Amino acid sequence: MKVKPRTLSGYMELLPKDQIKFNNMLDIIKRNYEYFGFLPLDTPILEASEVLLAKVGGETEKQIYRIDDKVMRFDLTVPLAKYVVLNYGNLSFPFRRYQIGKVYRGERAQKGRFREFYQADIDIIGDNELSIYNDAEIPYIIYKIFKELNIGEFKIKINNRKLLNGYFEYLEINDKASSIMNIIDKLRKIGASEVTEELISIGIKEEKVKNIIAFVTMNADIEVLKKFKLNIDNKNFSEGVNELDQVLKYSNNLGLDKKYIEIDLTISRGLDYYTGTVYETYLNDYPNIGSICSGGRYDNLASYYTDKVLPGVGISIGVTRLFDQLLELNLIKDEEINVSDILIIPMTENYEYISKCYKEVQKNKKKTQIFYEKRSIKSIINYALSLNIKKVMFIGDDEVNNNTVTIKDLDKGEQNTIKINEMKRYL
Amino acid sequence: MKVKPRTLSGYMELLPKDQIKFNNMLDIIKRNYEYFGFLPLDTPILEASEVLLAKVGGETEKQIYRIDDKVMRFDLTVPLAKYVVLNYGNLSFPFRRYQIGKVYRGERAQKGRFREFYQADIDIIGDNELSIYNDAEIPYIIYKIFKELNIGEFKIKINNRKLLNGYFEYLEINDKASSIMNIIDKLRKIGASEVTEELISIGIKEEKVKNIIAFVTMNADIEVLKKFKLNIDNKNFSEGVNELDQVLKYSNNLGLDKKYIEIDLTISRGLDYYTGTVYETYLNDYPNIGSICSGGRYDNLASYYTDKVLPGVGISIGVTRLFDQLLELNLIKDEEINVSDILIIPMTENYEYISKCYKEVQKNKKKTQIFYEKRSIKSIINYALSLNIKKVMFIGDDEVNNNTVTIKDLDKGEQNTIKINEMKRYL
Repeated sequence: MKVKPRTLSGYMELLPKDQIKFNNMLDIIKRNYEYFGFLPLDTPILEASEVLLAKVGGETEKQIYRIDDKVMRFDLTVPLAKYVVLNYGNLSFPFRRYQIGKVYRGERAQKGRFREFYQADIDIIGDNELSIYNDAEIPYIIYKIFKELNIGEFKIKINNRKLLNGYFEYLEINDKASSIMNIIDKLRKIGASEVTEELISIGIKEEKVKNIIAFVTMNADIEVLKKFKLNIDNKNFSEGVNELDQVLKYSNNLGLDKKYIEIDLTISRGLDYYTGTVYETYLNDYPNIGSICSGGRYDNLASYYTDKVLPGVGISIGVTRLFDQLLELNLIKDEEINVSDILIIPMTENYEYISKCYKEVQKNKKKTQIFYEKRSIKSIINYALSLNIKKVMFIGDDEVNNNTVTIKDLDKGEQNTIKINEMKRYL
Repeated sequence: MKVKPRTLSGYMELLPKDQIKFNNMLDIIKRNYEYFGFLPLDTPILEASEVLLAKVGGETEKQIYRIDDKVMRFDLTVPLAKYVVLNYGNLSFPFRRYQIGKVYRGERAQKGRFREFYQADIDIIGDNELSIYNDAEIPYIIYKIFKELNIGEFKIKINNRKLLNGYFEYLEINDKASSIMNIIDKLRKIGASEVTEELISIGIKEEKVKNIIAFVTMNADIEVLKKFKLNIDNKNFSEGVNELDQVLKYSNNLGLDKKYIEIDLTISRGLDYYTGTVYETYLNDYPNIGSICSGGRYDNLASYYTDKVLPGVGISIGVTRLFDQLLELNLIKDEEINVSDILIIPMTENYEYISKCYKEVQKNKKKTQIFYEKRSIKSIINYALSLNIKKVMFIGDDEVNNNTVTIKDLDKGEQNTIKINEMKRYL
């Protein structure tokens, strides 16, 4: 009895040609993270339950994969918190780290949702304090990555939770600030009328709801917000506006063109975790994909493990979902897959000569492989074509006797029999 | 109440400087695998139980992490078998694939044993047949990788299970061939007298046991084995000797110096899975580490999923364990960690000027980061030193006013204040 092989649904498994594209995407992200001085980290996928779940609740808790007293990580942030507290004495602060790895969430299986997916995170963790200029560097890094990924124009939307908190203080509804932010965060998804209903249902008066919606949906550039400061005179609001101002100004100084970044007051990221700057990133032509890179500033990375104050700012790219969507939309450029430059096809049993040719190809800095199986020429050529190998080298007894090789260019159809030491010109 | 953070025992988690070394090791392995034309694969860590456990038994079965009807993979070979059968129509054969990823085994926690560890595998899978020349290419690939890893001299030990089977036929004990191989595979670990006992305990007569031990421990070069063929005249033995002969000859043709490979008849790899060539690799100066790269030839990758005959040959490097041991033995070369080339230290609030300098450094193809926090110079220099950043750039109001920067070389102690456009010479 044979077992029927299958891959679990919600788990991405690619054909080699797509895997190469996916790896290329990961490589670009990794190279950029390293360029900006982030250190690599690779924490375990399994962690002790009480450690990883120290702070978790709500939806996430239900989605966790458990094995006895262990759980599979559901993000890369809680493991970072654990790591920083455990290794505090051996780290230099601000601690800039990147981690690219798989995380697990038992989401309801549906198109575009994954239970195993890659996150590619950076965070800058301060010891007791962390300058706002770090918040300004982040959008510049996002910009550099998505420029290089070359998947279309995009916009980084930023906001500041202090500003929102200050505004709710001004409306005297700051006791409900957290719930309100959770609701307005859904604005783009469910629309103004549903958000209105939800806000009313948590006890916000209709007039204030109108104010909130008008405020967060206005075309808010920084000059407008500075004028608001004249009326909304509280510390939170002022700080929020000032921080936004600095982030915009300084990211622009670093080289981020203004057309790639804008204030969007509806962005609040829902999570209580964030306390200042928040970011989301959208593809201009495909807003429905949702945010392709999100994050923000938090006051305290690891309050559930330590009394030390560890403020941080970071972003996360959900690479698996992004890749899946881009593939579907045909937005992944067809890279030249360069597995090998030339395929050697032995038509003789003289493997001493064949390996001589093989070494000669390698000496010429070309990648090569040898097709050892006995098959029809046609089927071997198909093998080469399927791997995008552009040239084949026939070696038969004639070639052995004359110290030659026959190179065929599969694109041009040209074929030349040449001396083995003339190879360079034809590779 | 704070939760005490911890990392599970048996799970490797490195400090950034070691993580960089580990990643460097993975990179070398990956680059070599790609150089030889292997395609990347990244299968899920979780698989359906009935699929992954289709063939498993014994020790491994007890070590498996289960989540409901799912299991965490314990190697990269069974997922490969699944993948090849599932995607058979979309793959080109011989299918050369590499996969580098974490696998999970709930081993008893002890020093040097890991429950989560990286395997770095290559396999060449044929459709119905696979030439012996593939078996000969593998040692050459092992050689290239361990040469580049530069962790000391090593030797690839090879054997052939057909040869052993033929020898047991000759002794008329081939009905117990599999158990005998399992026992002699332990020879280096437990010694000849314990192996003798074990062989007797499964019913092998003492005289034959003596024969076996004398045979497998002799100094077996290929010429000696060819002479044995004159007496041991059966198909298995002949084929085994001929295959070993071809593997040695052709790997040597490809460029593998003979001093890196030798026949060792005690190598049998224990697993029933292997049917022909088998490989193990040892560091000459540290044989106790055990084999650092092992594998072999198998007749049929996926008989539990399909009637198709898919012979293959492959190897696996247990990277986590290897790295851990090398680190302990101080055999990992101290790489220059080059996170950033220069650290910019702002001593002014003029961030427009600072970012101008930042861009100028990047224009000069140097990696840089800015230290935004207010700290003592000493503590900032310590930050730079801890990341092996060799130069710092001070930017204060004087520099702003004179359009200069002050660059200090931390190795040499030299410090120069120069015009911003003269930077190139000092970076």
